Amino acid sequence: MSTQRPRRIGVLTSGGDAPGMNACLRAIVRTAVYHNLEVIGFQRGYCGVLLGEYLTLDARSVANIIHRGGTILGSARCPEMHHVEGLERAASTLKGLGIEALLVIGGNGSMQGALSLAEHWSGQIIGLPGTIDNDLGGTDWTIGFFTALDTALDAADRLRDTAEAFDRIFLLEVMGRHAGWIALFTGIGGGAEEILIPEHAYDPDTIVKRIKESRSRGKRSHIIVVAEGACEGGVSRVAADIEGHGFETRTCVLGHVQRGGSPVALDRYLATELGVFAVQAALDGKSHVLAGKQGKTNRLVPLNEALDGNNQPPMHLLEINRFLAT
Amino acid sequence: MSTQRPRRIGVLTSGGDAPGMNACLRAIVRTAVYHNLEVIGFQRGYCGVLLGEYLTLDARSVANIIHRGGTILGSARCPEMHHVEGLERAASTLKGLGIEALLVIGGNGSMQGALSLAEHWSGQIIGLPGTIDNDLGGTDWTIGFFTALDTALDAADRLRDTAEAFDRIFLLEVMGRHAGWIALFTGIGGGAEEILIPEHAYDPDTIVKRIKESRSRGKRSHIIVVAEGACEGGVSRVAADIEGHGFETRTCVLGHVQRGGSPVALDRYLATELGVFAVQAALDGKSHVLAGKQGKTNRLVPLNEALDGNNQPPMHLLEINRFLAT
Amino acid sequence: MSTQRPRRIGVLTSGGDAPGMNACLRAIVRTAVYHNLEVIGFQRGYCGVLLGEYLTLDARSVANIIHRGGTILGSARCPEMHHVEGLERAASTLKGLGIEALLVIGGNGSMQGALSLAEHWSGQIIGLPGTIDNDLGGTDWTIGFFTALDTALDAADRLRDTAEAFDRIFLLEVMGRHAGWIALFTGIGGGAEEILIPEHAYDPDTIVKRIKESRSRGKRSHIIVVAEGACEGGVSRVAADIEGHGFETRTCVLGHVQRGGSPVALDRYLATELGVFAVQAALDGKSHVLAGKQGKTNRLVPLNEALDGNNQPPMHLLEINRFLAT
Amino acid sequence: MSTQRPRRIGVLTSGGDAPGMNACLRAIVRTAVYHNLEVIGFQRGYCGVLLGEYLTLDARSVANIIHRGGTILGSARCPEMHHVEGLERAASTLKGLGIEALLVIGGNGSMQGALSLAEHWSGQIIGLPGTIDNDLGGTDWTIGFFTALDTALDAADRLRDTAEAFDRIFLLEVMGRHAGWIALFTGIGGGAEEILIPEHAYDPDTIVKRIKESRSRGKRSHIIVVAEGACEGGVSRVAADIEGHGFETRTCVLGHVQRGGSPVALDRYLATELGVFAVQAALDGKSHVLAGKQGKTNRLVPLNEALDGNNQPPMHLLEINRFLAT
Repeated sequence: MSTQRPRRIGVLTSGGDAPGMNACLRAIVRTAVYHNLEVIGFQRGYCGVLLGEYLTLDARSVANIIHRGGTILGSARCPEMHHVEGLERAASTLKGLGIEALLVIGGNGSMQGALSLAEHWSGQIIGLPGTIDNDLGGTDWTIGFFTALDTALDAADRLRDTAEAFDRIFLLEVMGRHAGWIALFTGIGGGAEEILIPEHAYDPDTIVKRIKESRSRGKRSHIIVVAEGACEGGVSRVAADIEGHGFETRTCVLGHVQRGGSPVALDRYLATELGVFAVQAALDGKSHVLAGKQGKTNRLVPLNEALDGNNQPPMHLLEINRFLAT
Repeated sequence: MSTQRPRRIGVLTSGGDAPGMNACLRAIVRTAVYHNLEVIGFQRGYCGVLLGEYLTLDARSVANIIHRGGTILGSARCPEMHHVEGLERAASTLKGLGIEALLVIGGNGSMQGALSLAEHWSGQIIGLPGTIDNDLGGTDWTIGFFTALDTALDAADRLRDTAEAFDRIFLLEVMGRHAGWIALFTGIGGGAEEILIPEHAYDPDTIVKRIKESRSRGKRSHIIVVAEGACEGGVSRVAADIEGHGFETRTCVLGHVQRGGSPVALDRYLATELGVFAVQAALDGKSHVLAGKQGKTNRLVPLNEALDGNNQPPMHLLEINRFLAT
Repeated sequence: MSTQRPRRIGVLTSGGDAPGMNACLRAIVRTAVYHNLEVIGFQRGYCGVLLGEYLTLDARSVANIIHRGGTILGSARCPEMHHVEGLERAASTLKGLGIEALLVIGGNGSMQGALSLAEHWSGQIIGLPGTIDNDLGGTDWTIGFFTALDTALDAADRLRDTAEAFDRIFLLEVMGRHAGWIALFTGIGGGAEEILIPEHAYDPDTIVKRIKESRSRGKRSHIIVVAEGACEGGVSRVAADIEGHGFETRTCVLGHVQRGGSPVALDRYLATELGVFAVQAALDGKSHVLAGKQGKTNRLVPLNEALDGNNQPPMHLLEINRFLAT
Repeated sequence: MSTQRPRRIGVLTSGGDAPGMNACLRAIVRTAVYHNLEVIGFQRGYCGVLLGEYLTLDARSVANIIHRGGTILGSARCPEMHHVEGLERAASTLKGLGIEALLVIGGNGSMQGALSLAEHWSGQIIGLPGTIDNDLGGTDWTIGFFTALDTALDAADRLRDTAEAFDRIFLLEVMGRHAGWIALFTGIGGGAEEILIPEHAYDPDTIVKRIKESRSRGKRSHIIVVAEGACEGGVSRVAADIEGHGFETRTCVLGHVQRGGSPVALDRYLATELGVFAVQAALDGKSHVLAGKQGKTNRLVPLNEALDGNNQPPMHLLEINRFLAT
């Protein structure tokens, strides 16, 4: 771990993009500039490192982006980073450019990539949690989660309007292949009758039983929030299972709509705090750490620990939803 | 056509619900109360007429609903209205309750129902255009279209954020089995590269050709807005056709999300104007007419004319989109 | 009036900015490029013409702005345009640059400026209605009105939430020094108890009388929408008049918040249609006209006529609001 | 402290209303019903206790309110609670109704009232943090803060659009007589150039100096977020101080708009978690505590401690904003 203060840092956004990445870039660049660091912004995630595609960023480069969705650097998944050749090539770019610290904004895969890269490159690496999935260890919240959540909740609210006018069972598929955070919080916030998440075994019989019970009590509409990875077959299977019992369903698949939009205040706050904090960590010579938020405190957590202990959603919410959504 | 002023009127919301139906109910009820009319609100569309399920509505019944999605009366599609028995039964309820005029808020099917009912019941019938599809003749705009449109546009904007970060082709399916209004205006407003609507023949070869051309010019992301009824097979077929040429696509199906939400100002304005106008028409002894808006003028159009000449979307928008979305 | 097809056109946004100005610029530039015209974008309204500050705009210059508030060209009020020297200087820039047609997006003042300029410059001048005030003659709607309206309505809805929780009289000041459109439609859409606009004489006694009556009927909250120019002294005077009778009031001044925000679909549609239409008008050799929308039809109206007959808001809405907001 | 399980509980919402109060009521009532408790909902805060105005609430009473702003119970400030007579009267109502535990949703004043009441009534008292100000000790966040913040941030974003089009200094007054949370987070999230809060001494000279400096660097627009209580005289004084140096300002006063609106997901989540938690605390015989959230943990904190140590906003945000908003 170097205690040398870096003079040139690199930054990239990687993996699925998340609202707030731009706010984080702004904080990183302006903090760096304030400390007389040069900032290289690699384009399209690790691809930009591999291919040497980058921009030199100054304070003006990040003007007027704090409220914008997406990422001005672009993002990508970069399969070459799973191979030694790719990692060597990336390391070579970084060395060639004289990058002393690399700041990586992304999710699980991006942090894995950072650790792999660290085996081939001796510079400092600081991770920042940027993913709508909120599934990274070492931080309570990830940048983008709050906005994606409000997007999904808005859809749930709109479905409720029409569900009350009509008698139907609505299925709302939200993102989350491996993590139920968005589904869980959308379901709790939207007053959904059922919430299906990857962390909880899918049980169609119980769901159908509960639909029948509530119909017999006079309740005519149902909203079921389904995480992408709630079960094999996803929302189509859930729909088929329910329709198999004679109920009419309607499905809404939000998809990438959840990745976009102007970040809500909490995502901008988190992005800004962690951006400043990460640059300070770089200046302090830290490396192989994730800059995260735990309670009210900014914390540096070893990257491998952040990856080991992923962020489990609060499963008790499923239980309390049983008596809340009656 | 009776010139007798009605003392008791009925109102119902029918077909797919639309934002602004509640604002329209409020205007109808309060205008009626102001003119000393009693108002019976039938529940769940024509089903409430058939089954004699209704509420007596006064000025307080419609307090604090102007901004709410859905409809406090509920809505339904009512297949019994396609049969003489159903129509007779509905007429019988209306006679029994002493309803002198019936106000029907809905779309095409609801107006067809009104005309069928008119063959079995001699009271006045006034239609109000309430549907997100904007496909009724006799009026420039229908209540609910503007809100549904902004919901779809918000989704398109969010996709654009992420489309720019990533290289992908996004398909956004919006409502419109027979009418391309939502798709067309979402596509124009969202700057979509392609807009597929039922009124225009689906031509996958041209679409793929244009994707290839724009890729060769360096453009990496594409948004294609697809009306439900744009082609047989819908958005899944479009996705398959494009992926068949080696492009990666992501699909978002907005579905009933478009029916909900607090109505935007234009829908509330239209709902209010037409609600007041329809009650005045009833007081004036009009019948078998649709209360519509043409330009700045409220107009009564014979219901059968409104159904004959459906509201064609402005097809020239497809042409100008060719040079706008470059 | 030249029938020569222009090869170089200028465009500017002037006066108070309005959501949708960017969408209009996009449509103008891309239509012009499609027709092989060069486009000069003057910065900060007529100031840019006076000072020769401009950008050359191509199809890429207007990428990704259709959904953005503000105007990429900037806007300004330019007092020099009231003097012959200023007008001569502006004309001189236009001649020097070889501009054959000038497209001006703005409100009343901007169109006045265009007519004044026309006395000193012989090129074509086409106006486009861009103002949140909706007070231009010759067009049913102006670009920006719909978005400003929804912004104000959202504020009214939020006030209603808290007004119902508490017993208070809320005053919501919205824009409109000379035109009551925003106040009128916000009040109708928001279910406001009172709507005060410049076009209707301010009468505090009647307002206080109605507050007292509705209090005696048990109604405890009131929302009063006040256009800036509803009376001399504005919202402060209204508050003072009401508090003078022992009622507690709370005031909200929305101000320039109404000028910003991503344009709603209708504003983008209007901006796009009129942008295309204005360029076509320029190609057709038209001049001294406003490109407006009347009903479903695009129309060219002589600029002086558009300024003479300003767009009067539908005053009957004030009357129907008396029985709607009970 | 009773260890007897209560059979009848009371609940009220008090002080300034906050988005999420309804979601909290829903959680409280449904959790209570699930545990076979009766729930009395007092209307208009402590006024309802004093006057014996209440509703009996069951699971249906709180249907379809999770997403609504305001509070179905109404709220009020109740000066009688500062006097022994009022407190005695309130205690008498509670005894008469056989209330065993009282749940109070509100801010500082409401918790003070609860403690005063506790001197006259021996039942259990559980506080829940419901205020947009986020200034209660014992909890990281209060119900309503997140929504109010996003409302204010939306206004800041809209001002930014127009600020960039024009050259002006915009002042945005947000709520916070004694607490700078909303202003601080709005300023950080909105990229405001200045943030004025009650916790930091107002220094007009420094502000003007910085405006002059940034103008000399070519920056033409400024947004200054001002908490109501940032200085004596509030936003009008700030405007006067700045205009005194020859700058043109525009002021927006958001006011009670910040109290309304559908709660964002985080407020609904917090309201739901704490509602369930508070009922469980009542069942466990707890009293004189605030049900709060610290990090990811629900915590009971003695009410007097919660009031002593109020929640100080993160002042370092002011410092980092100096180099972020350049």
